[in-house]
Amino acid sequence: MRPISQRRPLALPNGSDRSKRAAILDAAADQFGRQGFDGTKWADVAAGVGIGQTALYYYFESKVHCLFTIMADALAEARRRFEATTSSASDHRLALEAAVLDAFDLTEADVFRRRILIGERQRLAVHYPGRREEESRQLARDRIREIEVIWITFLARGMERGAFKQQDPELLARALLGLINSAFEWYRPGGSLRLTNLGRFYTDGCLRLVLE
Amino acid sequence: MRPISQRRPLALPNGSDRSKRAAILDAAADQFGRQGFDGTKWADVAAGVGIGQTALYYYFESKVHCLFTIMADALAEARRRFEATTSSASDHRLALEAAVLDAFDLTEADVFRRRILIGERQRLAVHYPGRREEESRQLARDRIREIEVIWITFLARGMERGAFKQQDPELLARALLGLINSAFEWYRPGGSLRLTNLGRFYTDGCLRLVLE
Repeated sequence: MRPISQRRPLALPNGSDRSKRAAILDAAADQFGRQGFDGTKWADVAAGVGIGQTALYYYFESKVHCLFTIMADALAEARRRFEATTSSASDHRLALEAAVLDAFDLTEADVFRRRILIGERQRLAVHYPGRREEESRQLARDRIREIEVIWITFLARGMERGAFKQQDPELLARALLGLINSAFEWYRPGGSLRLTNLGRFYTDGCLRLVLE
Repeated sequence: MRPISQRRPLALPNGSDRSKRAAILDAAADQFGRQGFDGTKWADVAAGVGIGQTALYYYFESKVHCLFTIMADALAEARRRFEATTSSASDHRLALEAAVLDAFDLTEADVFRRRILIGERQRLAVHYPGRREEESRQLARDRIREIEVIWITFLARGMERGAFKQQDPELLARALLGLINSAFEWYRPGGSLRLTNLGRFYTDGCLRLVLE
């Protein structure tokens, strides 16, 4: 346990709290995405942003607290994008097409965040000792379930309107999410395979699973 | 580092080396499968089989060495079953159907092994200090790639013969494996959803992805 005085330093090296926090999240997502969570030293994240371990602790209780925060943020962003693309489409089939294509319309930093989300999610199953670790873990878990519910509702409505084949909407949602997510287990940016081509391939696959 | 004399104890508590090793693998797979790898204490695995930590070390260098061995064994079994089911079918479509159904024809212990394989696989990306850890990690990685190659070859032959739609066989193999594997991220034995129904749902999904 650190002494109380070290937990919330009053003066920080430079930049506002908000921008420093964002810089830590960006640096950590980049390192976790490239080298994996186990392959990244927490001290290297601090060094990458030019702050000491004590200042780092002001923002994140631990490496895993930072990981869960990256996950929760990425999930909020994925939800926002799914809602934006599906609400602007004129029918369910076009909405699904737009949502899956959009799930592959990513910057390199987005790809790393997606890879972290998929590759490290089993860590969300275990309790952690810290209060902030547990809060961020619960937030990420809740958001995974929220996204599932949004997909289930979307698919069920599409079935009601006759746009999609009648089947168990929960099983279907999990299959579609599982299929899309699996691409980020192996996809690496910068290779010969372009993300837009991958997006088209997976969009075709998802349509095949939902249509009659 | 343990002293040399502790590494290979000459006398073991009871049972042959082979059956004791199998008992450790079974107990560890059960605990990792139920509680997750991070949620399982290595000492509890030893206690579950009734051996001490020193004797445990005779068989496995570490918890992660045991994990990778479980993965490598599960992959060898998955390959054997894929080859057996596909070689006995009279055409490619029936072979695929049989292979996917078979991938869901599992005992509870098999489900746990499958869950470990899928949920913990990102640990295979990181180097480990121990020689036996690294050997088992490399073996599991090689077997994942071997299964991919077997699927790619199978799909490419099916396309050649006109049984499957022409598409990139490597992308398709990864999509099918990703889809099937994703079920074991969330499926828990003993609930209202029966594994045979799940198998039928995923078999239908896989056929939709490969057929014209």
